Amino acid sequence: MNLILLFQNDYISDTEIQINDHRFEHIKEVHKAKVGDELDVGLLNGKMGTGKIKAINNDNAILSVNLYQEPPSSLPLTLIIALPRPKVTSRLLQHCTSLGVKEIIFLNSYRVEKSYWNSPRLSPEKVEGAFIEGLQQAKDTLIPSLKLEKLFKPFVEDRLPDLCKGKQSFVAHPYTDKTCPRDSKAETVLVIGPEGGFIPYEIEKLQEAGCETISLGERILKVETAVTALIAKLF
Amino acid sequence: MNLILLFQNDYISDTEIQINDHRFEHIKEVHKAKVGDELDVGLLNGKMGTGKIKAINNDNAILSVNLYQEPPSSLPLTLIIALPRPKVTSRLLQHCTSLGVKEIIFLNSYRVEKSYWNSPRLSPEKVEGAFIEGLQQAKDTLIPSLKLEKLFKPFVEDRLPDLCKGKQSFVAHPYTDKTCPRDSKAETVLVIGPEGGFIPYEIEKLQEAGCETISLGERILKVETAVTALIAKLF
Repeated sequence: MNLILLFQNDYISDTEIQINDHRFEHIKEVHKAKVGDELDVGLLNGKMGTGKIKAINNDNAILSVNLYQEPPSSLPLTLIIALPRPKVTSRLLQHCTSLGVKEIIFLNSYRVEKSYWNSPRLSPEKVEGAFIEGLQQAKDTLIPSLKLEKLFKPFVEDRLPDLCKGKQSFVAHPYTDKTCPRDSKAETVLVIGPEGGFIPYEIEKLQEAGCETISLGERILKVETAVTALIAKLF
Repeated sequence: MNLILLFQNDYISDTEIQINDHRFEHIKEVHKAKVGDELDVGLLNGKMGTGKIKAINNDNAILSVNLYQEPPSSLPLTLIIALPRPKVTSRLLQHCTSLGVKEIIFLNSYRVEKSYWNSPRLSPEKVEGAFIEGLQQAKDTLIPSLKLEKLFKPFVEDRLPDLCKGKQSFVAHPYTDKTCPRDSKAETVLVIGPEGGFIPYEIEKLQEAGCETISLGERILKVETAVTALIAKLF
């Protein structure tokens, strides 16, 4: 937690907030914060700055907050990922958030097990929790959005072409010679397949929708690693 | 496990191997392999190819092995990382291995807790286990090396300058304007600090040894993420 994320309902006056949840535990246990200490804070979807501890006891802390700095810039990226295994969902969302991704879509694919769509990790509360972890890791305040697209064909045929319009659009695919472009910084749509990859029919459909296949080389990377590597190359 | 790593003592004849450990469990449970199936295999520090199941029962499997392909190329990189928290050690080693790193050094730093050096995760068995996981993830056979440098000053003063000779050498540091070079592909030494970063004295010492500070931007990334991002930019 490199930044403590604040919410509107933490405010007890125009400039003071009170916290008593896991953030309070964190500043007490990890920061070992005492009166007068200044911590990095940010208001959800707002500015960042410092919070100075005015009072702290066993139950809560009161901080005087001064917000003056814009959050870091977001990536011009729509990231579409085949729904991962429930075990990695939260970590992946947290991870993408820490990299500055703001638009995430989980997409169905032939190699996605149907049961994954029923995972409690996809509940709005769990998803928001993962986003907040990622923001607090990277020092950011702008919360991403997650859309769930449970049907491959209607999404790729009817909505993806519009999403790709006027942007560079790629699908990461091991079986292609074209490598990932570097330092393009343009508006981008990036599609990443499931473990085992998209099936040929899906690749075809994604290409028809405007996505060019790009490869990351011979090594087979985990989704998280592939996301980081592609983003680092592109932006 | 995208590749099953084989060892010399798996061989029961010139072309056949027998396995009965977790690799056997994996091909039985995950691959649901049966006689005649072909799996991707590779010999530790040797070639890769296919293993065709000749016999499989409840206790073991016999595969006929044909090795014909070189493993993917390694990164021309010496990666020096401030010793991470024990909890992330194995995952980080596995992660670096999957990216193609072959030379890893864990270095002491002011912000590394002394107790971390006593972690059982640093035992040769655990380290080798993490390397093997990484190789099996990425489809590679060349096992990396890990050195432990428990004293910052003698390493950075006496050995690092030689390591850096004739190579581009960088230390990742948030407080610098210079961004990571792209697509250099040159022989590289890359130093990555602990959570909270190197202290100014350490940065100074690393610079004296020949390392240039480079930044990854405003966001604070986890070590794993920073490693991937820097490697993706450099190579």
